Amino acid sequence: MNSELLKDRKKLMTLMKNSDPFFEEFGGLDDKAFSQGAISKKHKELTMVSISIVQKCEECIIYHLGECLNHNATREEILDAVKIGMMSSGSTSYPYGRLAFSFLHDNKIL
Amino acid sequence: MNSELLKDRKKLMTLMKNSDPFFEEFGGLDDKAFSQGAISKKHKELTMVSISIVQKCEECIIYHLGECLNHNATREEILDAVKIGMMSSGSTSYPYGRLAFSFLHDNKIL
Amino acid sequence: MNSELLKDRKKLMTLMKNSDPFFEEFGGLDDKAFSQGAISKKHKELTMVSISIVQKCEECIIYHLGECLNHNATREEILDAVKIGMMSSGSTSYPYGRLAFSFLHDNKIL
Amino acid sequence: MNSELLKDRKKLMTLMKNSDPFFEEFGGLDDKAFSQGAISKKHKELTMVSISIVQKCEECIIYHLGECLNHNATREEILDAVKIGMMSSGSTSYPYGRLAFSFLHDNKIL
Amino acid sequence: MNSELLKDRKKLMTLMKNSDPFFEEFGGLDDKAFSQGAISKKHKELTMVSISIVQKCEECIIYHLGECLNHNATREEILDAVKIGMMSSGSTSYPYGRLAFSFLHDNKIL
Amino acid sequence: MNSELLKDRKKLMTLMKNSDPFFEEFGGLDDKAFSQGAISKKHKELTMVSISIVQKCEECIIYHLGECLNHNATREEILDAVKIGMMSSGSTSYPYGRLAFSFLHDNKIL
Repeated sequence: MNSELLKDRKKLMTLMKNSDPFFEEFGGLDDKAFSQGAISKKHKELTMVSISIVQKCEECIIYHLGECLNHNATREEILDAVKIGMMSSGSTSYPYGRLAFSFLHDNKIL
Repeated sequence: MNSELLKDRKKLMTLMKNSDPFFEEFGGLDDKAFSQGAISKKHKELTMVSISIVQKCEECIIYHLGECLNHNATREEILDAVKIGMMSSGSTSYPYGRLAFSFLHDNKIL
Repeated sequence: MNSELLKDRKKLMTLMKNSDPFFEEFGGLDDKAFSQGAISKKHKELTMVSISIVQKCEECIIYHLGECLNHNATREEILDAVKIGMMSSGSTSYPYGRLAFSFLHDNKIL
Repeated sequence: MNSELLKDRKKLMTLMKNSDPFFEEFGGLDDKAFSQGAISKKHKELTMVSISIVQKCEECIIYHLGECLNHNATREEILDAVKIGMMSSGSTSYPYGRLAFSFLHDNKIL
Repeated sequence: MNSELLKDRKKLMTLMKNSDPFFEEFGGLDDKAFSQGAISKKHKELTMVSISIVQKCEECIIYHLGECLNHNATREEILDAVKIGMMSSGSTSYPYGRLAFSFLHDNKIL
Repeated sequence: MNSELLKDRKKLMTLMKNSDPFFEEFGGLDDKAFSQGAISKKHKELTMVSISIVQKCEECIIYHLGECLNHNATREEILDAVKIGMMSSGSTSYPYGRLAFSFLHDNKIL
């Protein structure tokens, strides 16, 4: 897959929503679960970094690390989230932990 | 991994089968499970699209979407299969749903 | 956990929906994904039997087998769905395949 | 398995640690990852509720919900953690969400 | 599920094989993969203990621990297999490690 | 992600260890679990090939196949480990089995 479209997340999300109202509702429910609530947006994004490592989803790790930075999570908080993800899912999550460190290094956080 | 061989699925399947009879039997049993039966081949391939999203297997998603088209699944049936996969496995399957949409767009289905 | 409530699925679903509107929307979206559509309700329930075996979810297997019977899936179709689930996820799904057979036997299908 | 020992988590943990120093170190590292840090103990336990639902681990869900209560997480924060877990892993996590609600009901939180 | 049949693994396996030849072939292929080969039966069963912990499958853990004992694996080899399983899949595998220790204790190995 | 750093596993491991002592301890515990013990280093690496296929982790598969070769596992032992991984996790592990065969071919083992 070298689809040009695949690189353009926004266009793809629009295509999904235009194809069937289910995907618009799915996106809306997702936004609701992860927006500011009793748990803050920042802490939800930190949780998603941990879950993305547990789920071994590369794209998710990069996306939620970016969101952590957008919501002013500190270097130490992000490292804590990576620890939680790696400790929860063990050494088969090592490549996903390394991906997180690589992103943090490229973004001058580490 | 930039192995030339990896791109050539057929040669790799032949290599597997020639290396040990186990892999030939595994392939034969797999063919049996997914061939036309009480459930039609088309519906089995639609089910495999859903399962591939649940399992977060990129190569499987592309392969089974191709098989859906080969067995005349409609656009609406394929969208239903993507919905089932995404609803079953939640928002961490988003990147895999987007991959499916990208494939469908590249193949002029969407 | 021997909660009386846990045995009463309906009361628990009501408690969820009353606790927070998110759970009502989640349930509604779930209903939408699995209702009759381009893929029939019967075929969606067969797919969910396969996915439940892949996901190793005991309660899900029992629930969706019951729904298959409610929507007139045949013995052969259900066996096909079990095959797809077990072939997709391998021999660590054996206990879940046996659970399906036990249910089918208790319900005089096998 | 109706082992008396299995019900006695503390004795089992002692047995593990006495059997091989690896298990003592594993436990120590686990304690380190989940103790108060840049992310608070309360938020780590909330994250573990979400991860336990994603991982479909019944014992983990009950344990971490109890820890959330021990660390003064509010009803609303716990519901947010359940939402994150269910939204991340979709409708096959329904039985695990219901387990959480059943625990919260039995403990007079809901 | 309190099916009498579920407790009787052998009868259930016979029911599966008699229902459809697929399940007989699946069982045969499974036997082939896990029988004595270049890797010994004992080491294959030790590997299956690790994989069963990684897969969070309770019935599989008990079954393969029993097979380890049947094939004269030592206490130390079994502890190594539990370590590999827990280290590979992290602290969410704790309940499954404890299940293994409980079984080993009940069988006077620990 | 085209990070130069990501390609340099050693530098990334150093960055992790220098960022927080947790990662050094995690690495040390991992080394302990997978070093020569009651189960030999060679058999532990073979087990890790099986687990890496079960976990669908591409980088892990390549790494542990390399370690198998470094510890003098035979062609037949490695094929047995691939069989165990594929049989345990079914046909959705096919792409990961093919990756293993591609690596073995590129390294003149097959």
